[in-house]
Amino acid sequence: MKPIPSSLCDLDAQHVWHPFTQAALADSPFAVVRGQGPYLFTEDGRQFLDGISSWWVNLHGHAHPALAQALYRQAQVLEHVIFAGFTHEPAVQLASRLAKVLPSGLTRIFYSDNGSTAVEVGIKMALQFWHNQGIPRTRVLALEGAYHGDTFGAMAASERGSFNAPFAPYLFPVDFIPAPLPGQEATALRALERALEGGDVAVFLYEPLIQGSGGMRMHAPEALANMIRLVRSAGALVFADEVMTGFYRTGRLFASEWVTETSGQQSRSESVASGAFDSPFTSDVQTAPPNAEDLGPDLIALSKGLTGGMMALGVTACRDFVFNAFYSTDRSQTFFHGHSYTANPLACAVALASLDLTLSEKTALAVARISQKQSAFVQRIADHPRVSQARSQGTIWAFEWQSDQESSYFHPVRDQLYRYFLNCGLLLRPLGNTVYTMPPYCFEDDHIETIQDAVLHLLDNTHWLE
Amino acid sequence: MKPIPSSLCDLDAQHVWHPFTQAALADSPFAVVRGQGPYLFTEDGRQFLDGISSWWVNLHGHAHPALAQALYRQAQVLEHVIFAGFTHEPAVQLASRLAKVLPSGLTRIFYSDNGSTAVEVGIKMALQFWHNQGIPRTRVLALEGAYHGDTFGAMAASERGSFNAPFAPYLFPVDFIPAPLPGQEATALRALERALEGGDVAVFLYEPLIQGSGGMRMHAPEALANMIRLVRSAGALVFADEVMTGFYRTGRLFASEWVTETSGQQSRSESVASGAFDSPFTSDVQTAPPNAEDLGPDLIALSKGLTGGMMALGVTACRDFVFNAFYSTDRSQTFFHGHSYTANPLACAVALASLDLTLSEKTALAVARISQKQSAFVQRIADHPRVSQARSQGTIWAFEWQSDQESSYFHPVRDQLYRYFLNCGLLLRPLGNTVYTMPPYCFEDDHIETIQDAVLHLLDNTHWLE
Repeated sequence: MKPIPSSLCDLDAQHVWHPFTQAALADSPFAVVRGQGPYLFTEDGRQFLDGISSWWVNLHGHAHPALAQALYRQAQVLEHVIFAGFTHEPAVQLASRLAKVLPSGLTRIFYSDNGSTAVEVGIKMALQFWHNQGIPRTRVLALEGAYHGDTFGAMAASERGSFNAPFAPYLFPVDFIPAPLPGQEATALRALERALEGGDVAVFLYEPLIQGSGGMRMHAPEALANMIRLVRSAGALVFADEVMTGFYRTGRLFASEWVTETSGQQSRSESVASGAFDSPFTSDVQTAPPNAEDLGPDLIALSKGLTGGMMALGVTACRDFVFNAFYSTDRSQTFFHGHSYTANPLACAVALASLDLTLSEKTALAVARISQKQSAFVQRIADHPRVSQARSQGTIWAFEWQSDQESSYFHPVRDQLYRYFLNCGLLLRPLGNTVYTMPPYCFEDDHIETIQDAVLHLLDNTHWLE
Repeated sequence: MKPIPSSLCDLDAQHVWHPFTQAALADSPFAVVRGQGPYLFTEDGRQFLDGISSWWVNLHGHAHPALAQALYRQAQVLEHVIFAGFTHEPAVQLASRLAKVLPSGLTRIFYSDNGSTAVEVGIKMALQFWHNQGIPRTRVLALEGAYHGDTFGAMAASERGSFNAPFAPYLFPVDFIPAPLPGQEATALRALERALEGGDVAVFLYEPLIQGSGGMRMHAPEALANMIRLVRSAGALVFADEVMTGFYRTGRLFASEWVTETSGQQSRSESVASGAFDSPFTSDVQTAPPNAEDLGPDLIALSKGLTGGMMALGVTACRDFVFNAFYSTDRSQTFFHGHSYTANPLACAVALASLDLTLSEKTALAVARISQKQSAFVQRIADHPRVSQARSQGTIWAFEWQSDQESSYFHPVRDQLYRYFLNCGLLLRPLGNTVYTMPPYCFEDDHIETIQDAVLHLLDNTHWLE
């Protein structure tokens, strides 16, 4: 299925450079004119069920009226103000509410504009944390298969490969540890142990439970917990990139909760999920470094779902002991980072309205319902000859399209699968031969089943593929 | 003047980490509850005239109803959609309109989320442009005193100093050329000539006419033109960072127009300023590299004023010959860069509404009026013993507060000056001992004079300072 050419698509072809798109090979884009709930509607009269939450950002459906209202209210009152020397209610309320629901102790909020900047802010905080104390911890550890964004610092901490090959000479060195994937947990632990031996590691950065762009690669909370325990014992900082996993994607409000629960730490989302907006926990300011059994991150990066899918906003939250290393009468110890629109009131107001929806009982029930159906589907397809590594975590499932060729982002079946789903009226976007779905929480059972049926039909009718 | 403590400020102190702010030394922030036109109103009943456009972003005044309406209209229809494989009218229209008013030939638009990402996108485009062609041009040139943002790539291209000292070992090498400041034009040219000798320069990056965060350092269009001419002759790419200077700050729609005019190239803004929304020029797609006398940039970064001050959005525009170096059936030549909210429909819709206002006759007249008054003021204060290097360019003036101490971002007079202006009900924010103003275009004569009078009063009553 190809879109019908239009003047809009002509203008697009003339002037727009699309992200992650090879214009010489891509079909002309679909021109979307309207979104509503789980659907996108195009100029040429088609509709698509948004099975990937528009690049993993949408939580509550498209053009949600409550979010539009919150945005408009704020735009009429205070659209923006410089955030140095000045503050405003949406930023302060959002920081305060996030502090209450984030994994234990992440009570200090720094705003930026997207996931890539949120990760860079966290890396910079971690490096300067040691620098300010005169402690020579300078190395950054990340996981093989990682993706943390496309700015230079975020690229440096991401798997080196086709995405960043032209920029390799410009990326600072990062030590990559095998991800604790099923079957290679011990290898990962041993590699991590060796990397920590010198006592010079500043920070360990990871996507908890699911490496998204790397191919929806999943690992067990216990396996990650064992790695974090090593990092803690070695005294380095722990930095969770929850840009994709945050806001219920993994079935908990934050994926890090699955990890902390492995050591019996109390989870906040349990009470949050019961329907009360504010967690009964008061903010738990941690001014001292955590002990070895505390598996919660010291830093966390959030974006994507933060505004419910409306607009760009990034947050880097940290424990107060990190902030305290910058609190000084020596001006050189300041964190000299900022963007013009840091803590934009519009974005913060939308994030607050989205948080209201996210923390409602309705969303908690939807997340539980979707998670259950996704998990059941994975069991159903697991043994199909075209399926390998069928897996799910919370609201996400994924599998590898089994073929003679190796799994890869450039797998030739990708475009065929993508077009097949479009023909079914479904926006899915395989990562190479990795097929996955990550729906918004407004998906009803029939939306989920529509996608699952399309996959089942495909699996049993593969003669036209390859 | 200090703000009255409030529960909002208490919560702020507990949870917010402000950009570029040393919490141990900063006064408690003012809590802004409302903005209107040139004014910000605080929780404790004060009002401030926003003399710096809230970090150089605001063009048309705070909480502008036309921008709020445009935002709300878009939010009810399509708040966001993935921008790979899909497109939408606000992004396409904005790209098309920008292509018509940008300096000649910048017809291809890549969206991102802020100025720092827009610069990184441009640097990456420039490096991969050569990489894709197998041409060993790998060096990046920038100007001493530059500021391009706070992500790692943007930091690498910025003046090395206190702002980025903790991260110096993580920044890729950049060759810094003296800026062509008055009196050092020849030095700058000689240094540039030497840097270009090896034939391995990929790109020359600069803030045209005004280096903003570096201290509102201004240089003449002719001086920059001579440098660009050298870069062109050497075959490297030319990249203008107009994140701050764009959208009339320098008196032209884009500062690069001042430069192209030095060689007699026709300017687009002349016709635009006459009041017609659309330039009579059709988009001028340039598929071949420009000749040596073409002083327009090959790449330009925009943000800040792009949305009129409402919300975060970045644009990197380039000539089509740059885009063409990525257009290939070889997937490895793709530009693998993107952010989840790339080309966010809300931000694009607001940018379109702001462009309507910006390109109106009313704004052109305001820019001319403000520019004239700023220039006259500079002449008036130039010889005052407390003033050195009084200067103006378009809507901006700046001077150095003259004292026994060297000019510096950490100059002790900075906090005294900042507080003095706050006491006058003015939001000015000296860069060290550099005093400047950069008003939105809704400033009437009395707003400009209020600031100028406060400066004059200060200059004649300095006994309480220092």
